[in-house]
Amino acid sequence: MSLFPSKERLAHIVFEHSDKASRRFDITVLWLILLSVLVAILDSEPWLHERYKREFYFLEWAFTILFTIEYILRLYLSSRKLGYIFSFYGMVDLLAILPTYLSIFLANTQFLVVIRALRLLRVVRILKLGRYVKEAEILKSALRKSRAKIQIFIGTVLTIVLITGTLMFIVEGPDSGFTSIGVSMYWAIVTLTTVGYGDITPITPIGKFLAAVIMLLGYAIIAVPTGIITSELTTSSKYTPDSGTKVCKTCKSRHLDADANYCKYCGERL
Amino acid sequence: MSLFPSKERLAHIVFEHSDKASRRFDITVLWLILLSVLVAILDSEPWLHERYKREFYFLEWAFTILFTIEYILRLYLSSRKLGYIFSFYGMVDLLAILPTYLSIFLANTQFLVVIRALRLLRVVRILKLGRYVKEAEILKSALRKSRAKIQIFIGTVLTIVLITGTLMFIVEGPDSGFTSIGVSMYWAIVTLTTVGYGDITPITPIGKFLAAVIMLLGYAIIAVPTGIITSELTTSSKYTPDSGTKVCKTCKSRHLDADANYCKYCGERL
Amino acid sequence: MSLFPSKERLAHIVFEHSDKASRRFDITVLWLILLSVLVAILDSEPWLHERYKREFYFLEWAFTILFTIEYILRLYLSSRKLGYIFSFYGMVDLLAILPTYLSIFLANTQFLVVIRALRLLRVVRILKLGRYVKEAEILKSALRKSRAKIQIFIGTVLTIVLITGTLMFIVEGPDSGFTSIGVSMYWAIVTLTTVGYGDITPITPIGKFLAAVIMLLGYAIIAVPTGIITSELTTSSKYTPDSGTKVCKTCKSRHLDADANYCKYCGERL
Amino acid sequence: MSLFPSKERLAHIVFEHSDKASRRFDITVLWLILLSVLVAILDSEPWLHERYKREFYFLEWAFTILFTIEYILRLYLSSRKLGYIFSFYGMVDLLAILPTYLSIFLANTQFLVVIRALRLLRVVRILKLGRYVKEAEILKSALRKSRAKIQIFIGTVLTIVLITGTLMFIVEGPDSGFTSIGVSMYWAIVTLTTVGYGDITPITPIGKFLAAVIMLLGYAIIAVPTGIITSELTTSSKYTPDSGTKVCKTCKSRHLDADANYCKYCGERL
Repeated sequence: MSLFPSKERLAHIVFEHSDKASRRFDITVLWLILLSVLVAILDSEPWLHERYKREFYFLEWAFTILFTIEYILRLYLSSRKLGYIFSFYGMVDLLAILPTYLSIFLANTQFLVVIRALRLLRVVRILKLGRYVKEAEILKSALRKSRAKIQIFIGTVLTIVLITGTLMFIVEGPDSGFTSIGVSMYWAIVTLTTVGYGDITPITPIGKFLAAVIMLLGYAIIAVPTGIITSELTTSSKYTPDSGTKVCKTCKSRHLDADANYCKYCGERL
Repeated sequence: MSLFPSKERLAHIVFEHSDKASRRFDITVLWLILLSVLVAILDSEPWLHERYKREFYFLEWAFTILFTIEYILRLYLSSRKLGYIFSFYGMVDLLAILPTYLSIFLANTQFLVVIRALRLLRVVRILKLGRYVKEAEILKSALRKSRAKIQIFIGTVLTIVLITGTLMFIVEGPDSGFTSIGVSMYWAIVTLTTVGYGDITPITPIGKFLAAVIMLLGYAIIAVPTGIITSELTTSSKYTPDSGTKVCKTCKSRHLDADANYCKYCGERL
Repeated sequence: MSLFPSKERLAHIVFEHSDKASRRFDITVLWLILLSVLVAILDSEPWLHERYKREFYFLEWAFTILFTIEYILRLYLSSRKLGYIFSFYGMVDLLAILPTYLSIFLANTQFLVVIRALRLLRVVRILKLGRYVKEAEILKSALRKSRAKIQIFIGTVLTIVLITGTLMFIVEGPDSGFTSIGVSMYWAIVTLTTVGYGDITPITPIGKFLAAVIMLLGYAIIAVPTGIITSELTTSSKYTPDSGTKVCKTCKSRHLDADANYCKYCGERL
Repeated sequence: MSLFPSKERLAHIVFEHSDKASRRFDITVLWLILLSVLVAILDSEPWLHERYKREFYFLEWAFTILFTIEYILRLYLSSRKLGYIFSFYGMVDLLAILPTYLSIFLANTQFLVVIRALRLLRVVRILKLGRYVKEAEILKSALRKSRAKIQIFIGTVLTIVLITGTLMFIVEGPDSGFTSIGVSMYWAIVTLTTVGYGDITPITPIGKFLAAVIMLLGYAIIAVPTGIITSELTTSSKYTPDSGTKVCKTCKSRHLDADANYCKYCGERL
């Protein structure tokens, strides 16, 4: 046994998640990603940046070099190299290392911090395994099935936002902070979603009355998306493939429980 | 074949949505509406208005002329002309073009912007087709069925708003911004719906205590409309065609349970 | 036929809601109540009070005299006079007229406005009829059944509010506006219920972190009361007396639909 | 009969909740806890502390001595003394009395107030009986079953928070109050959870547009946890003993459907 594992063994460790070594690799990468994101967050804090400028710079390069090694490794082990480079995760992997190298050549490096935050998306690949997959699938399926209902809902909300936004722009006007229809629509969204910053608020009695109506409307219609998702989840949780129902061949009863040995209606062995 | 389609063909294109030409007409109108609304929004932005005054003016007239042509076309093709003019969509179509013509004669044209925003309602006609209709029907039916429950709920909310509004007006008084019962009720709605602008907030300990009670109440009763809608949607979604119901061949009863052996209405073997 | 109806007829009009005359009486009283409440709201508006002082004063007395006549009528027609006076609605009826008479003797009459707002409760008696009763019963029953769950929920919320309130009082201190545990608890309720006035906000990084945790918690646990009510409404809507299920005498099948003529399992006539 | 009850009798009173004496003991301790927490809250109010400094000091010592007696009693009556001391409730009981004793030796006693608030956790032990246990169990079970779904949800929320936080930090910058990614993430949480303090708000048009998108997103995804919990509660409430399930006498299977004619596990006629 040599010190370095074979290419096959390495590919197994990097791409699979089934044995101890591959899982240890996953967890190491997971922690490296979370730490590198944490460093980016802390580095943006002015007083921390002032004090630990050097340390953050060093850490950022350390993470970048480690991720570069990982990228090269994935590229080297991949059977379809171009396929990997232009795949979604291949792009994310590249975006995770590029900013630091670009920062050598660029003067204004502030926008690179957004790309660094995208590193978090790499976590998804690692989590795309185990028990989370099935649950995420149920959630996604519930969202997909209620797509048409949600589109109608968002369309209705945007129409309400446009019309109330325009009304408030006329009623309140620039003196109360409603300087344009755009700003009024921003206010309508802030109000309808019950966020309510208070940076723009109605001042005239008519404006306050209109705002109160919109709030009660927003309070009532928030029930609709909740109802849609819940209804979908409740219904789908009954007919999920794994709780797959049985059919009795004798009496043709359907929707028998998946754990049934005998038909509950005619008593026949299933 | 002449360059201009026949009146029948034109009527088909304008009123139906079944073939390529009519769908292309729908989509063109849809985009014109959305663009004209977008122009109205951008035009209200002071700094954009300053710079692109002429362009917005030209675009507004271009849209108006196109919508006028469409209106005349619909009127010409309609078999019941008066019926079209006084129908809901006929009025909306007219309101979509009137403001611009009125702006020639009127000095203060600001309120016309609201009417321009109403153009968005024209989108509804075009969307009133395809797969959205059925889904919207389910949502509307769920809302209609829970109407009585929602009316009770809104009545309860308004009673709470009036009583807490009056109480806070006494407890806090004009010094804290609660200048009248009307303003206090506005505050109560802002609080109960969890919008919470913060333009008026209780200052005295008793006022803060009362406000906290109302918040917890609002937090708890938001569950009620959600529960109503969800319950209605869950129940109604059980009778959608795809959830596997049976039909009786003898008495033509529909929506029989999937596990039924006999028709529950006529007793016939299914 | 005399001009004045008999005492029996009058009692019927005042206490029953079954024929035209009694319903007209109900609706007249309903409008008088709503108008008197509206007058109280408008009267509290300083600029309206200034201008229409006399008119409001006159209207208030007109409503009071009408309600006094109604009170005397109810008392005169009631078979158990003491029972009426000390019943809940008897007290509310008395409270609806007392404040105006008291205002003759009292100097500071501001707190009387609260009692005037209580007049709205009289509306409930009139609405306690027709189709609202059954729906309100379903809502009340759902709330009653989930009482224990809601008590646990409110207990948990109050414990979270006390502990986070105390923590924030230590972390942020009086300089950020967290002047006492009481104020901190008020802040915690404002935050947890997602009202978020912004009159008190965390300033220190630790305080902001703690606040973010509480917000996410509040965002997550708002799902619990909604879930409780919805679950109760969904379940109860299946087993409400009117949708009462049938039982088959032959095959003993239960939960058969109320509109079934034949058992869906064995085909027997029900 | 002596004046002092036997050790067995005392242990029964302190640890059990079945008879009158033990219940009276529970309720006394419950009130002592609630009163001591109330005193701690009132004592933190500056103007009350100023006036009733002595009374609060006296009460605090009175509660501490009573809780100390209770602690010694529990320790004396406990058969496994070390087990009690290091149990969760043993620690909470100790933490309820320690702060006051420590305050003799320590100069800065402010942080002790947090520990005093923890006394409220002692209430849980007393409530851990009676009808609340079963209901709490249902709620806990619903939360436990939806744990994986909730983890995915929180993961998604945190990813959204990080990415929008970073974006807003770039778009708005320190001039609008977005001084670091950490602060931007705090803002993103305040917005997404619809709390909306308004201490930090977007000022630039792009920032406002981004904020509006996040609000609509937050408004839509709040439906997801609600849907998860509700779906779980609705499903689990179907298997509560009272919703009429059958038990097989042959194989002792429970939770058989109410409409089953034969046991689905062993095929026996029910």
